[in-house]
Amino acid sequence: MSKPKVFEKPIGVKDYLPHAVVKLRQIENQVLACMRSWGYEQIMTPTMEYYDTVGVASSTSDRKLFKLLNNRGTTLVLRSDMTAPIARVVSSVLKDSQFPLRLSYHSNIFRAIEEEAGHEAEFFQTGVELVGDASAEADAEVVALAIASLKAAGVDRFKIAIGHVGFLNGLFEDTLSGREDAQEELKACLLRRDYVGYRERLRELSLPEPVQRELEDILRLRGSQEICLQALQLSSNATAQASIRHLCEMWDVLKAYDVCEHVLIDLTMIGDFSYYTGMTFEGYAADLGFPVASGGRYDNLLKQFGRPAPATGFALKTTRILELIGDSEDDLKERVLIGYNDAGRGQALAKAQQLRESGAVVITEKMELSAADEVAADAERSESREKVVYKGETFAAFIRFFGEQEGASV
Amino acid sequence: MSKPKVFEKPIGVKDYLPHAVVKLRQIENQVLACMRSWGYEQIMTPTMEYYDTVGVASSTSDRKLFKLLNNRGTTLVLRSDMTAPIARVVSSVLKDSQFPLRLSYHSNIFRAIEEEAGHEAEFFQTGVELVGDASAEADAEVVALAIASLKAAGVDRFKIAIGHVGFLNGLFEDTLSGREDAQEELKACLLRRDYVGYRERLRELSLPEPVQRELEDILRLRGSQEICLQALQLSSNATAQASIRHLCEMWDVLKAYDVCEHVLIDLTMIGDFSYYTGMTFEGYAADLGFPVASGGRYDNLLKQFGRPAPATGFALKTTRILELIGDSEDDLKERVLIGYNDAGRGQALAKAQQLRESGAVVITEKMELSAADEVAADAERSESREKVVYKGETFAAFIRFFGEQEGASV
Repeated sequence: MSKPKVFEKPIGVKDYLPHAVVKLRQIENQVLACMRSWGYEQIMTPTMEYYDTVGVASSTSDRKLFKLLNNRGTTLVLRSDMTAPIARVVSSVLKDSQFPLRLSYHSNIFRAIEEEAGHEAEFFQTGVELVGDASAEADAEVVALAIASLKAAGVDRFKIAIGHVGFLNGLFEDTLSGREDAQEELKACLLRRDYVGYRERLRELSLPEPVQRELEDILRLRGSQEICLQALQLSSNATAQASIRHLCEMWDVLKAYDVCEHVLIDLTMIGDFSYYTGMTFEGYAADLGFPVASGGRYDNLLKQFGRPAPATGFALKTTRILELIGDSEDDLKERVLIGYNDAGRGQALAKAQQLRESGAVVITEKMELSAADEVAADAERSESREKVVYKGETFAAFIRFFGEQEGASV
Repeated sequence: MSKPKVFEKPIGVKDYLPHAVVKLRQIENQVLACMRSWGYEQIMTPTMEYYDTVGVASSTSDRKLFKLLNNRGTTLVLRSDMTAPIARVVSSVLKDSQFPLRLSYHSNIFRAIEEEAGHEAEFFQTGVELVGDASAEADAEVVALAIASLKAAGVDRFKIAIGHVGFLNGLFEDTLSGREDAQEELKACLLRRDYVGYRERLRELSLPEPVQRELEDILRLRGSQEICLQALQLSSNATAQASIRHLCEMWDVLKAYDVCEHVLIDLTMIGDFSYYTGMTFEGYAADLGFPVASGGRYDNLLKQFGRPAPATGFALKTTRILELIGDSEDDLKERVLIGYNDAGRGQALAKAQQLRESGAVVITEKMELSAADEVAADAERSESREKVVYKGETFAAFIRFFGEQEGASV
């Protein structure tokens, strides 16, 4: 295998240039401020965690974990989500804090990828966890906060699709009892939204006609609260019924939040994560095929860290949102260039400090008098708003100090 | 070897709880804003880089690099500084941008550590690189910006010690020509500021009396600009003389910046990094034994990435500054608790949104009427400013909605 070239970076990771960083920081700050106004306080955890604890507890499949060894020969992983590290913190450093706990984060996340996949190996997520509250009220709170967070991030048109793992589990328990393989295959079809494949697989199972129709009918279970009523009639399984009633309650709360225009119930939705135990949701921006947010309830994770508790939360896919919104083009501040010689240096640097303190961006440069004359002449000839060009950069103003009077060209 | 416990995190890394995150974010934002006002734009690079390029070019010794393999079997490293990645970016993505380039960063950095050392394996640095300007003016700019950045971070009392690798190199070239081992040993003593060891080693070398005195005398070369004059007389070596004249010029510029009260020339100072080629500096906060900033000129790094250019820069040790300044105790915003039942939910959540939009932090909670009565009664009895305690948390105000009139307890 050939050595990497000096200019290359590893596959699946990227550099963010100033315009992208400004935009990313804006999204980060606005979303974290929104989360904070809902009482979610930010925490930060290490990039590396033990494989045997957080690595194993995370929802990421083993082959997607980046692994490395520390000096003791213990296997570490680069965090593949923030939910498992936060569960560790809630169960250790925060073990004396009373529930409910509301925590937020903005963090880079790592996933080892297949070469051909074109997926990102490092990306940003901004999210929350609400730990210690099992109610529909809590689930609705995180959905409503996901909606507020997407708006804060600058995403205007989006839908949140809400499902519940208990509905399908209950339905399959009744209709495909003992046929775990068939259940898994059907779920896999739904996970990748392959409805054609789902129908084909169903037919291959040679189920009694009413059962087959029942399982086909769930594909139409997408819409508003009326979907819950239809679903209640579709299955009398206790788990399925309880799941639907939970979604119905959530809908009532979301109505009170006045956010139902963004919400869709979709009972064919299966959370990507194996550890979801209740409602799950995904956020889709208009015209985009991939989710910009995902979340759900995970009531079994915390007990793996010794402090059993129900929990619910979500993460925005911040890197995708950045791509959706694009780089900022015009929010780099107006820049001032100050040119000077030895004799003007003291005045020039004092002026620079004064302008910086008043909020300006100032670049200082010692230059020849002839160069300063040229910049000033160019600036006077220019008719555009950004008048001064120097060494490939544009400036809104040029000020010169050459041991004489201050001279400004704006 | 025993498995890690579920609550453990790896050695040398840490969790930041909300109070620490608020403070860290404050430092980060204030320092980056300061750097931006000097024209330095922020960039971000991947956590992982190729070992064969950035890993090898970095100043970190091989045994301190965290290494891992990607799916292709290529060795990657977790970045051990930001200078080498930025050199890569300047030589690739930014190869068409004209010099000088002013770039800033705030980033976590990784160093594999000896078990017993108690050093951190992951920590934050906030810094700048000024690429494409070889002048004393440029070196003075980054020193002045380091001073402004330390102030922006909230460090009040500190000194910047400035040295120059050329002075010792020139002096040793003349006095210890051909005795590389002795040169390395003496430099190692100076690097760890072991002046007793330095004197002992000197005596063991059995040098002629005047040479020994000359080499002992450098230990006294710490102070203001007058040190430069003494140093010019100490050695007539061309390299040493050019280095001193460079420092002298820098001092003139730093005078114009009006920051000399923070600056000390220290010709015994050796940069920690093997790749410094000119002036180096370290920032020391009052009463602290370790540096809170370090930087210098590295004119040989960029050519390893195919775009030869002089460069100078520095990094604040942000994690140490955080420890120095301590967690914030009182800047978590005042929080409002809103309690409600089913009948009051719509009003309660609308009120919450309105308060959040006006800048408040609001936590909403569905509760029994009896619980709300209890909270309200406690609040009325309390005489402290933070009147409301609920589930272990304090709130500045409690507002209730129970399908009746709004009731506020403040």
